[in-house]
Amino acid sequence: MGEVLVDVIAAGICETDLQLAEGYMGFSGVLGHEFVGMATSGPFAGARVVGEINCNCQECSRCLAGLGNHCANRTVVGIHQHDGAFADQVAIPQTSLHLVPDSVNDDQAVLIEPLAAALQIQQQIELSKVQNAIVLGDGRLANLCAQAISQQAKDILVVGKHELKLSRFRRLGIKTIQLTDLVCEKDFDLVVDCTGSVTGLPLALQLVRPRGTVVMKTTVAADHHVALAPIVIDEINVVGSRCGPFGLAIESLQAGQFDLSGLVTHRFALEEASKAFQVAVDPAAFKVVFDVANSSNR
Amino acid sequence: MGEVLVDVIAAGICETDLQLAEGYMGFSGVLGHEFVGMATSGPFAGARVVGEINCNCQECSRCLAGLGNHCANRTVVGIHQHDGAFADQVAIPQTSLHLVPDSVNDDQAVLIEPLAAALQIQQQIELSKVQNAIVLGDGRLANLCAQAISQQAKDILVVGKHELKLSRFRRLGIKTIQLTDLVCEKDFDLVVDCTGSVTGLPLALQLVRPRGTVVMKTTVAADHHVALAPIVIDEINVVGSRCGPFGLAIESLQAGQFDLSGLVTHRFALEEASKAFQVAVDPAAFKVVFDVANSSNR
Repeated sequence: MGEVLVDVIAAGICETDLQLAEGYMGFSGVLGHEFVGMATSGPFAGARVVGEINCNCQECSRCLAGLGNHCANRTVVGIHQHDGAFADQVAIPQTSLHLVPDSVNDDQAVLIEPLAAALQIQQQIELSKVQNAIVLGDGRLANLCAQAISQQAKDILVVGKHELKLSRFRRLGIKTIQLTDLVCEKDFDLVVDCTGSVTGLPLALQLVRPRGTVVMKTTVAADHHVALAPIVIDEINVVGSRCGPFGLAIESLQAGQFDLSGLVTHRFALEEASKAFQVAVDPAAFKVVFDVANSSNR
Repeated sequence: MGEVLVDVIAAGICETDLQLAEGYMGFSGVLGHEFVGMATSGPFAGARVVGEINCNCQECSRCLAGLGNHCANRTVVGIHQHDGAFADQVAIPQTSLHLVPDSVNDDQAVLIEPLAAALQIQQQIELSKVQNAIVLGDGRLANLCAQAISQQAKDILVVGKHELKLSRFRRLGIKTIQLTDLVCEKDFDLVVDCTGSVTGLPLALQLVRPRGTVVMKTTVAADHHVALAPIVIDEINVVGSRCGPFGLAIESLQAGQFDLSGLVTHRFALEEASKAFQVAVDPAAFKVVFDVANSSNR
């Protein structure tokens, strides 16, 4: 099945975009992999859609084994050899598209991609067995991960540096702590690193209990310079976690299981891309989106 | 229960000893944590024993949770705040001792500690689901790990640098490949890093398939300088693995499941420690032991 042109309604800036803009993955092309748009052709023509970002070949051994997100021949929308959604239109394989229900608004829909990534954790880790979890980082993905984990894990804490960002968690009933107040006693069953920083893993290894689990949720462009002996000594399980189930994310939004209100804090036209990227690194910003439908010339 | 003085019969030099001698863990004291000896008191008095290396408090929350090997108050024989077995006698908690059956000879018994460590992998990973595994490293622990894994995993390959060491695997019916001939196609279900080198993990991440498992079996004193983004992108499971079940190791030896013949290649008196350590780093050596019973003045 071929690609469908999607008229972009809105597209969000992700931490990965900031790293790609600095040279991560050597990507050259149009950025943007979190989006909602209107399909212009195919079975979803005229309807709102979101799109999975891994465009796989559906033929290789990984695809046939159900690991389509890890297809060796894949392109990745806005990340690897496939132009992304910071544009009026984006081309997406029909097989990657999901319909957006009417009950999910555009601001929610633009967060389905990162929400699916947050929900990937519960596909990999048996959260019901987790007594206490800590999320490292107070940003966009951390917020979605904390909400996802708090649905199943008994006790969850979020550590960050920015009071404004941390307050967003407390409004959701999630406990927070400033990094400077954190005491490392190696007593967390689960540590989820959403820092997007090379400082995340060393801190995680100081927090996780022996035989506990560290989920690496954010990619870091830079090399790590880190003592990994604690992984062996404490027999830690380090789990890399990337893209997640769009279907589950959409169902969770329909069921009202996530509070995404107020998470989109800034809106820009595509022409304001440079300013938008500047704002996206500001702690006062949460999700910065390109409001394409209301600012394009189409 | 108190400690028992054990008359050391033989004690082996491990990769960790070589790293400790170079400053790893800042240990100061008598090295040696792989040994067989004769208990001088307690219920095993006069009998041959081996000893687990983690001396735990049996009172803290980790001990009570069955994680005695991770007791926060533990000392570790020959590694951390507890003198080891490169001596005529070593003091070991009675609760850490295991009787050595008559059918297990001294050369086998001195390898029970690393054999238990090798068997720890099957406590952590469901090996029967592993289609293909690769062991990185051709040394002492790699040999035991390869034997342990080959009992359950369908297909196993060992990669190393030393033809002489690799030939020891082939004699056991285990396939080998020279590092220079290795093609990295990210297609192994399981990669076990026994290199004791910072080069092990980056290589492992080039070999493991997406959603596959990397077992870190050897500690490395040095910091790693490594790109860890592949762990996230390929959703790899990195599992630290340390000490293992002595009881299972002893049973496996009794059942003849491991071929340890010829693994002890060099024997020295304690007085020859400096020479013994030099030989232990030589690729031509396999297991170097202090033959204490036959060389001491007692």
